[in-house]
Amino acid sequence: MGVFTVRDVSGMRALRLSAPDDGSGFGRLDLVSVPVPVPGPTEVLVRVALCGICGTDADACRFRPDNTSMFGGPISLPVVLGHEASGEVVRTGALVTRVSPGDLVALESVLACGTCDTCLRGRRNQCENVVLTGLTAPGALADYVVVPETACHRLSLLRDSGWSRQDTLLAGALLEPLGCVYNAVFVEGGGIRPGERVTVHGLGPLGLFAGVLCHIGGASQVVGVDPVPSRRELAQHLGFSACLSPAKDHTAPPDTSLLDAEVHVEASGNPAATLPVIERHLRPGARCVVVSRTDLPTRIDTNPWVSHAARLIGARGHCGGIFPSLLNLFAAGRLDPATLVGETLSLEEVPAAMARGATATSAGKTIVRVIEH
Amino acid sequence: MGVFTVRDVSGMRALRLSAPDDGSGFGRLDLVSVPVPVPGPTEVLVRVALCGICGTDADACRFRPDNTSMFGGPISLPVVLGHEASGEVVRTGALVTRVSPGDLVALESVLACGTCDTCLRGRRNQCENVVLTGLTAPGALADYVVVPETACHRLSLLRDSGWSRQDTLLAGALLEPLGCVYNAVFVEGGGIRPGERVTVHGLGPLGLFAGVLCHIGGASQVVGVDPVPSRRELAQHLGFSACLSPAKDHTAPPDTSLLDAEVHVEASGNPAATLPVIERHLRPGARCVVVSRTDLPTRIDTNPWVSHAARLIGARGHCGGIFPSLLNLFAAGRLDPATLVGETLSLEEVPAAMARGATATSAGKTIVRVIEH
Amino acid sequence: MGVFTVRDVSGMRALRLSAPDDGSGFGRLDLVSVPVPVPGPTEVLVRVALCGICGTDADACRFRPDNTSMFGGPISLPVVLGHEASGEVVRTGALVTRVSPGDLVALESVLACGTCDTCLRGRRNQCENVVLTGLTAPGALADYVVVPETACHRLSLLRDSGWSRQDTLLAGALLEPLGCVYNAVFVEGGGIRPGERVTVHGLGPLGLFAGVLCHIGGASQVVGVDPVPSRRELAQHLGFSACLSPAKDHTAPPDTSLLDAEVHVEASGNPAATLPVIERHLRPGARCVVVSRTDLPTRIDTNPWVSHAARLIGARGHCGGIFPSLLNLFAAGRLDPATLVGETLSLEEVPAAMARGATATSAGKTIVRVIEH
Amino acid sequence: MGVFTVRDVSGMRALRLSAPDDGSGFGRLDLVSVPVPVPGPTEVLVRVALCGICGTDADACRFRPDNTSMFGGPISLPVVLGHEASGEVVRTGALVTRVSPGDLVALESVLACGTCDTCLRGRRNQCENVVLTGLTAPGALADYVVVPETACHRLSLLRDSGWSRQDTLLAGALLEPLGCVYNAVFVEGGGIRPGERVTVHGLGPLGLFAGVLCHIGGASQVVGVDPVPSRRELAQHLGFSACLSPAKDHTAPPDTSLLDAEVHVEASGNPAATLPVIERHLRPGARCVVVSRTDLPTRIDTNPWVSHAARLIGARGHCGGIFPSLLNLFAAGRLDPATLVGETLSLEEVPAAMARGATATSAGKTIVRVIEH
Repeated sequence: MGVFTVRDVSGMRALRLSAPDDGSGFGRLDLVSVPVPVPGPTEVLVRVALCGICGTDADACRFRPDNTSMFGGPISLPVVLGHEASGEVVRTGALVTRVSPGDLVALESVLACGTCDTCLRGRRNQCENVVLTGLTAPGALADYVVVPETACHRLSLLRDSGWSRQDTLLAGALLEPLGCVYNAVFVEGGGIRPGERVTVHGLGPLGLFAGVLCHIGGASQVVGVDPVPSRRELAQHLGFSACLSPAKDHTAPPDTSLLDAEVHVEASGNPAATLPVIERHLRPGARCVVVSRTDLPTRIDTNPWVSHAARLIGARGHCGGIFPSLLNLFAAGRLDPATLVGETLSLEEVPAAMARGATATSAGKTIVRVIEH
Repeated sequence: MGVFTVRDVSGMRALRLSAPDDGSGFGRLDLVSVPVPVPGPTEVLVRVALCGICGTDADACRFRPDNTSMFGGPISLPVVLGHEASGEVVRTGALVTRVSPGDLVALESVLACGTCDTCLRGRRNQCENVVLTGLTAPGALADYVVVPETACHRLSLLRDSGWSRQDTLLAGALLEPLGCVYNAVFVEGGGIRPGERVTVHGLGPLGLFAGVLCHIGGASQVVGVDPVPSRRELAQHLGFSACLSPAKDHTAPPDTSLLDAEVHVEASGNPAATLPVIERHLRPGARCVVVSRTDLPTRIDTNPWVSHAARLIGARGHCGGIFPSLLNLFAAGRLDPATLVGETLSLEEVPAAMARGATATSAGKTIVRVIEH
Repeated sequence: MGVFTVRDVSGMRALRLSAPDDGSGFGRLDLVSVPVPVPGPTEVLVRVALCGICGTDADACRFRPDNTSMFGGPISLPVVLGHEASGEVVRTGALVTRVSPGDLVALESVLACGTCDTCLRGRRNQCENVVLTGLTAPGALADYVVVPETACHRLSLLRDSGWSRQDTLLAGALLEPLGCVYNAVFVEGGGIRPGERVTVHGLGPLGLFAGVLCHIGGASQVVGVDPVPSRRELAQHLGFSACLSPAKDHTAPPDTSLLDAEVHVEASGNPAATLPVIERHLRPGARCVVVSRTDLPTRIDTNPWVSHAARLIGARGHCGGIFPSLLNLFAAGRLDPATLVGETLSLEEVPAAMARGATATSAGKTIVRVIEH
Repeated sequence: MGVFTVRDVSGMRALRLSAPDDGSGFGRLDLVSVPVPVPGPTEVLVRVALCGICGTDADACRFRPDNTSMFGGPISLPVVLGHEASGEVVRTGALVTRVSPGDLVALESVLACGTCDTCLRGRRNQCENVVLTGLTAPGALADYVVVPETACHRLSLLRDSGWSRQDTLLAGALLEPLGCVYNAVFVEGGGIRPGERVTVHGLGPLGLFAGVLCHIGGASQVVGVDPVPSRRELAQHLGFSACLSPAKDHTAPPDTSLLDAEVHVEASGNPAATLPVIERHLRPGARCVVVSRTDLPTRIDTNPWVSHAARLIGARGHCGGIFPSLLNLFAAGRLDPATLVGETLSLEEVPAAMARGATATSAGKTIVRVIEH
């Protein structure tokens, strides 16, 4: 049991990001004590077990010299970070019917309104009034978090399959980042056919997970490119066919034909460097899925896209439809959560880790153990 | 080297099917000696190494009491059977540019005209003037076969990957039946997303191969149903999650929820028996791919298809676009040809094997070694 | 203004269906006075203007000799019928943000829970806990109806485009049945490419609307088949290329090649009669969309589906994503609501019209003017 | 009958492009007399009636100061230009079965080999050994042209529908450019759903035709952007909802929300100017189809593509599967060839027209009447 529970105090720990006042360019991250939130009628109070750290969290910590946020997406400061979480339901609103206290759940973080024009068009992932846990609503780098019932995915399939509580919660915390690349490659990107080749540019967690899922989805070859040796080693260990270091200037990749692929995944956060490489390795009908963000404009040469009938496909997040498929893969033993994790931190260790940019070069997903079991 | 080569005789062996004259219901299968054919300017002479036996071959042997063919598709009797072949190029026509003597090749058996309205609409697999090797043109259950250059797929990828000549030719002979189910599930059927569940009804070679490819393609569960124990055992050995025997009357399947699936494959040749089972196990948005044929009408209840937004998708054969992906899977080690093979026959043994209906219950693909290496 | 408003009485009129007690096979339809419902926090009270009558309503009225319902789908008797409605928002719950009193709205009738496994898989239209306005929840053949905010689609685009209040409400009442065939043909059915041919079997409102939408969607030919002359005439008037009467036994259609199509729509409610015709007119790669229901089993011959790589696709209802596209078509002048309407009834006239089976042969959608303007 | 026929001379006129020797930057275009070609066994000799001039033809005429070609694609100089042709079959090779002398035909210009790896993967449009009529093989700006039988599409449907010989040949000559945008929007681009909005950037023939086909395909709004008034007028006349002139610097488009669209077509040849505009008007799930070429690199901002799950899709040419659908649209009266034509030239007038850059600003397709009827 954790050092801090809902029963013995009126407050809880929460990792709060606020704008800096010193022009340092890096947001303030404070572990504060705040009241345990109370769920509304259609909401659920979840005791957080595990919560991943995402490149988005690092981006959210970047500020301009005038202390304004550099974050590209919506954010409401100050905010409790954390949007890749699993935990246990401890209280439910009066109208909640599908989850109960004691249920282990994973949380979906893109909360669509359901009533805006974009939602009504069926594009809930692009909801005009979207609420983002950990960015525009209090997140899960806290002992407790309140979310709508519709954001809770029960993990009973894994428990029923004989998984331990700990493994189940770890799988649950990985669903959100896995879901992002599943959405990018298999929903927005149209998927892959068995025997197609995949090249992944950038082997941070998103790129790593994309390659793993493409391997599961029948790719005959998955090649990864990243300058960090430990990332290449982990990818190789997880089934990548080959992993290469990019040339410094991305103009002389080490093995041309090995990068040829029907599916490219841009996950480096630096498309200005990778797209020229990708353009030389587009196969006819190729898809290039972009899952990373950058502030910088990117140069493309439209000719290879036109000649090869290739397409560049942007994607981020996910909103429904994906977690059950990932849970099936976990339950079937096709995904092993332990292999996907890099560093494990306590909540107290997060600010320092963020300050030293730990997620920028880590191999595997960084996971915060919010409450020890 | 084989016992029979093009160099020392003016003829070759060929397994010829002709209509019976005795009302027995079973076609005459004679191993005859015929002249070695001469390739035209755009054609290739191939020395056949291996050739699979298909349910279609068995169907082609069925005749009515009045000695007319019961075969549902096009057939020109008498005909040399055989359409799942690999071999070595021994002579090429004057205009042939892409294959050379000595090349190991697999043969595509659906030969589209390219100029009929249906071909011009891009539906070459449904060509109105289609020529079918082994049914309307001389087939590959013979020492040699002539095919258009466009029907030849070089197997150099496997040789270059260090495969033996024998394994390469075996993989080559399996491409045609693998291609049929690849076309059915991943082209016409729209494919599967990782984490979807598949139920395969009928574990003959097509059903077996469909399940194997769905597993490779990311299915979290592949369940097989077949009354023959050896077929279930082989499927289980090849990665099926579970294999069941159907209830005698198909009204009481042994484990209801286990058959629930997003993708059903009807490969039993008896959809009248399997479709009522399938209709009880359609998940929302389910696809049911029908790869087998039957003479008999089938009863369906349209309501579950309407309620679940499910679809029934017919498919047969393939014409282009698939062999390279399968070769990639072989080269990547994701498909092992040896595991997919059942009985191995010599050319001389085929008539007796056909007469005793050997393919109807065999586990794995029956392969004929036309010329011993 | 109507003869009956929320202001001057404590009750409202509602057309209530209950089980019969006389073994007549036809449900009791009573125009009763009931309290005006009160919207909950996320709900909206709508004054109904227009409400279409659907084949589903007729089906809901069918009972067995023992007075049990013959209806195939979910129904909670007694129930106020009506699920194809438009009206004006008159009151909103405390949490409603997107619609306001005075807004003209169309109502979506499939209300997904959002939290069941099927909703979480993104298949909200097949929600396991679905609430169906007019079948399992009080419907819109009443002066007022309460629906969730998420079921309301504002019609302001039409008003802003200069449409009259009356035309706007008429377009709104047509969105639900138009949405059913839009979902069937363009979402589940994969759509049509310009220059494809369409044959519609059954020219009731669903078949008629399917043909009209396929014409808008680029079909080069839309042929309708129906025994009722007035239905054929209306279809012809709305842009069908040709309309035929089916042969009595459906074995000898009057013009074979005219029925050849890449897309068939089964909207007759009698697939046992139409599918054998359809099977003779499947073009390579054809889709047959089934939008009607029947109690009776249907015989199919799987061979033409296999040979032509054709598919049979079931579909019903819709849940999100479609109304905005239909409103765009209305606003652009590509759909004219007045042309799609057949008989117009008052609420009082509905029971008699249902009793005489008026909707079974009517040309165009039967519309009930609930409150006169 | 024309002034120049195969019967009375041993030669024919042909418009030959060769490299300049004067550093002028513009290729030599000579109307030369060359022998009438003789068809091979699978080829057809066609008397050319009409042949369109394409932006590709203009690009092929651009040379560097050192007299080397600036053309981005494959070209074999000197070459007879012309790849958008219709005509009459006058002689057929011995193996030709599907067309006969006297048949009116349209010519497909992308001639796939059928045997390269890319063709065998089903991507014939990206054939590695592609032969391009009018670029790497003698083209149709000549009295006669020889093409493979598979490149001939008979126009009998139009004649059988009562079309005049002249209108039929005009429709035939338009199939190639119409096919390019049909391929881009409806094949590679995935098509549009009725009620979606389309914005076309650049109203040369490709952009104009794209908008016309999107209108036919159910777009509720088609907005065009082009600086040339006559192009905007023609587009408006052909059913575009609105046509705008771009701001000079493309940073201040005149009506923001009017450009919002689910489908953008880049047909300006200047994506560096249009993509920043397009990025501001991407709707969720938007597709941007790029059908034009440029030498210049283009800047994109990946963020809006990522946020909106939008995709950029390149496409050029077409190889099979499209002409029959377009012919259906012509026969059904949904496309009127006369309205799509701009300037009409004689063969003799082409060099001067090319020299003055006539196609760069023309409204409608420029057509050359090779042989007067």
